[in-house]
Amino acid sequence: MSATTQESKTAFSVVNEEPLLAHWQGHRNLTRKMIEAFPEKDFFEFSVGGMRPMAEMVMELIAIAGPGLQEIIEPGSADFKESFEHQNKKENILKKWDEQTPVINELWEKLPKEKFEAEHTIFGEYKGTGLSHVFYFIDNEIHHRAQGYVYLRALGIQPPFFWERD
Amino acid sequence: MSATTQESKTAFSVVNEEPLLAHWQGHRNLTRKMIEAFPEKDFFEFSVGGMRPMAEMVMELIAIAGPGLQEIIEPGSADFKESFEHQNKKENILKKWDEQTPVINELWEKLPKEKFEAEHTIFGEYKGTGLSHVFYFIDNEIHHRAQGYVYLRALGIQPPFFWERD
Repeated sequence: MSATTQESKTAFSVVNEEPLLAHWQGHRNLTRKMIEAFPEKDFFEFSVGGMRPMAEMVMELIAIAGPGLQEIIEPGSADFKESFEHQNKKENILKKWDEQTPVINELWEKLPKEKFEAEHTIFGEYKGTGLSHVFYFIDNEIHHRAQGYVYLRALGIQPPFFWERD
Repeated sequence: MSATTQESKTAFSVVNEEPLLAHWQGHRNLTRKMIEAFPEKDFFEFSVGGMRPMAEMVMELIAIAGPGLQEIIEPGSADFKESFEHQNKKENILKKWDEQTPVINELWEKLPKEKFEAEHTIFGEYKGTGLSHVFYFIDNEIHHRAQGYVYLRALGIQPPFFWERD
């Protein structure tokens, strides 16, 4: 099998270069807007159908993003910690959110192409290729953000437009 | 610029080959499970926060999937039709859903690599590269499915596990 054939089959260029990172950061921008749209109290308390308040879902996203990439680079190097001290203030959650933004960019730069192809067990239990993990991080964020959209609608608040990624 | 550099910059192998199609069809399998989990009446009537009932969101997804790919292949060749006769029966929605599954696979085969890179205006108004459109189709599905998860929770029903894509 030639190198070219190998490349077209395994196909990591798209994920190791700008497009997928920009796609993810665009989603993160939208999630940030969704967080901003919440009244502070509701962000920490409001729930539908016994689900977690939005703050808890967002802390999960923060726990996954940078640490997840770190785990793909070097399994066992990061922990999955879903909560941190926030004193029921959105600004404390947004601060952590914003701290992750350059961390993700920096870790992405360090991800060698072959890491997307290889299988890794991250956080000691989740097995998959680097590519499948990155898709999972993004999909999981879209999933929980969409749940936040329903919370906002139930609160009578218009969520940000889905296509606003800047 | 060498062909190799060009390839690593534009990077469409991953989307023109199996991985992204399999990723999408995996998401479609999960969405189908979500539809199945709804009681028939609630699928067509239940709503949170004034949002559309799940049936309407699913009809939107059906209107986008195959026709959207068709539009990338040949702009102006398909219409965006969000509703069809379903007689308030889930089986009629699922039938349309299942009809789309092989259609998506067949259209995917026809999508030349350069279509992912080029800009297309689809359904007469949405502009973007073929790749960005495909990501939008998938992301939009994850988004609405997640809203269905909240509906199910509000109805006291356990949604399918997010990672069940078979």
